[in-house]
Amino acid sequence: MGPRLEDMSAPARLAGPDEGISAQELALAARNHGLPLEALRYEVTPPGLHYVLTHYDIPYAEESDWRLVLGGRVRRPLLLGVDELKAYPAVRQRVTMECAGNGRALLTPRPVSQPWLVEAVGTAEWTGVPLRVLLAEAGAGPDAVDVVFTGADHGVERGVEQDYQRALPLDVARGEEPEVLVAYAMNGAPLPPQHGYPLRLVVPGWYGMAHVKWLREITVTSAPFRGFQQAVAYRLRQDAADEGEPVTRIAPRALLVPPGFPDFMSRERAVRPGAVTLTGRAWSGCAPVTGVEVSTDEGRTWHPARLDPPDAHRWAWRAWRFTWTAAPGRHVLGARATDADGCVQPVGQPWNRGGFMNNLVQRVPVLCLDPDGDG
Amino acid sequence: MGPRLEDMSAPARLAGPDEGISAQELALAARNHGLPLEALRYEVTPPGLHYVLTHYDIPYAEESDWRLVLGGRVRRPLLLGVDELKAYPAVRQRVTMECAGNGRALLTPRPVSQPWLVEAVGTAEWTGVPLRVLLAEAGAGPDAVDVVFTGADHGVERGVEQDYQRALPLDVARGEEPEVLVAYAMNGAPLPPQHGYPLRLVVPGWYGMAHVKWLREITVTSAPFRGFQQAVAYRLRQDAADEGEPVTRIAPRALLVPPGFPDFMSRERAVRPGAVTLTGRAWSGCAPVTGVEVSTDEGRTWHPARLDPPDAHRWAWRAWRFTWTAAPGRHVLGARATDADGCVQPVGQPWNRGGFMNNLVQRVPVLCLDPDGDG
Repeated sequence: MGPRLEDMSAPARLAGPDEGISAQELALAARNHGLPLEALRYEVTPPGLHYVLTHYDIPYAEESDWRLVLGGRVRRPLLLGVDELKAYPAVRQRVTMECAGNGRALLTPRPVSQPWLVEAVGTAEWTGVPLRVLLAEAGAGPDAVDVVFTGADHGVERGVEQDYQRALPLDVARGEEPEVLVAYAMNGAPLPPQHGYPLRLVVPGWYGMAHVKWLREITVTSAPFRGFQQAVAYRLRQDAADEGEPVTRIAPRALLVPPGFPDFMSRERAVRPGAVTLTGRAWSGCAPVTGVEVSTDEGRTWHPARLDPPDAHRWAWRAWRFTWTAAPGRHVLGARATDADGCVQPVGQPWNRGGFMNNLVQRVPVLCLDPDGDG
Repeated sequence: MGPRLEDMSAPARLAGPDEGISAQELALAARNHGLPLEALRYEVTPPGLHYVLTHYDIPYAEESDWRLVLGGRVRRPLLLGVDELKAYPAVRQRVTMECAGNGRALLTPRPVSQPWLVEAVGTAEWTGVPLRVLLAEAGAGPDAVDVVFTGADHGVERGVEQDYQRALPLDVARGEEPEVLVAYAMNGAPLPPQHGYPLRLVVPGWYGMAHVKWLREITVTSAPFRGFQQAVAYRLRQDAADEGEPVTRIAPRALLVPPGFPDFMSRERAVRPGAVTLTGRAWSGCAPVTGVEVSTDEGRTWHPARLDPPDAHRWAWRAWRFTWTAAPGRHVLGARATDADGCVQPVGQPWNRGGFMNNLVQRVPVLCLDPDGDG
């Protein structure tokens, strides 16, 4: 008996109490990358700074060869090239996207997977065709339940060989608010390879796992989809044996641009005494953000920040600012968002075995230098 | 006495024998990123896939406000806006750039710094003005020795507060082969923020630390430059007290596109039995690559690969390919480059305290699945 997939693919596990980041986690961190937090300055994230997570390899694709199939329980299956998709009326949406595993590497115990700190986020302008337009044209049958999206990325995960696949309930797939897009452009240019070139799904308000990249097939089904990424991964479980709740929409979060300047290695920040303007962004995929508070004393006290008023971009982050008077010493800064559903970012970790939906408040240690010292 | 910079900035160190990747190394890995190895397929690396290393923060810049000063030991100091630089005859060069610390996290013992595996590389087309043209116009004085380049990125490193600065000897700075550029475009578009927008230095054949980003000052000096990044960092030392040799040009290296498909977590590869085409790229900043050999048995035997002939792009990588007949079992693949200086990639680690210039042969474990198994 020769080698089998199980020989290269182990079950999910939690890190031991004193276990440093493993070589496997480092390999993921070296491939995938977050938003450097100073890039929160940009309302729309420039190319290359938006977070990226690729489960397997980035497929090699040529736009001219690409075909999207829309089939399953429909009356008129569609087969569309990218040019044909571009012939539909285009919709452009600004969307803040976040990885469901953001914050995972800060959890105790730490689920061993892509080791994000807090930076797995980005905002882009996506251009494409509303999925509801394509579904209406194809005519989803009366028994339709789920819409399954298949990407061209192929690999093994926890012993299961697969193309990346996720589903949305039919009512979400053909919803108008949010409006799901089959996107072919990011910030006005063709999708970069790592963001799904030539086609990807964009599901405003949902965590990144729903935004299937390298999209080649859309299948309407009459039974709930039970594929690996739906039924095994991306569920909230306290114990491995739990069925778990599915991960769906983005929980509220605020992040701040770390002020001052950093140390190369520790990434700690230094500021000079006096007024320091703190700025950042806040978002929620559940309901609009209604407030941001800032703490400069490690969460003991909270002060309201000035939040930008709502604008046309419901599914994108909003800017906030706060003036802090820094005095010499060590400080820990943080910000927390509240949304219109009344959800507030927690100050204690929301833990589950996958390390999903962890919107624990960011912790930014800052050293305010003594004006008479050598700083 | 209040806090000082030393309180946030520790000396360089080596990891202990069983020390996993630390939280500080992970924070660097989450910010900076390598080239996902499947992107070796592209002759010119698409935006966002080229490796990036930022010592401090990415500065926020507006092209219209940017001024480059060329001064020091010159007869006619220059003050140039980006538009003025664009008025000079433009030169476009394809350049493979690699971080001097590439491979560091695979060393034993491991120097604690940016924890690269092997992927800190990329190739871009840079457009700009030859530095020698600007130096000639300014008229470097007869006592000129070094040319110092100052970026707008500011931070602390090993206790030293600094703007990022590096120097080149005058003869390198005004050389024609390689020709150093003050670049304003990458792959035909303005530089992305993380690659130095709006201006950076490009020094073909040299490791990345020489290609100063966010370039705002060029200073001709009559004494050798002794700044931190020149005299303290980026030197080859066996002991902390050594003066050390400076890191300059890129040592030869070949990398292969890992074949087959990966496991999400282990990043191990699976292939089916039979002919597998292995492809990759090879480069050297010292002398042209003259050969690439491939091993499929963990370095016990080596076989010549087919290397693309030389082309107009002396300072860019060259493609190679090799056909491997995979049989069921575990294999370790690797490739090694030789250049015209006779330098060959080593099969044992070249170790120094900074983890620089480590061009140890890549190690790609592959599982060839049993055709009768479940794979």
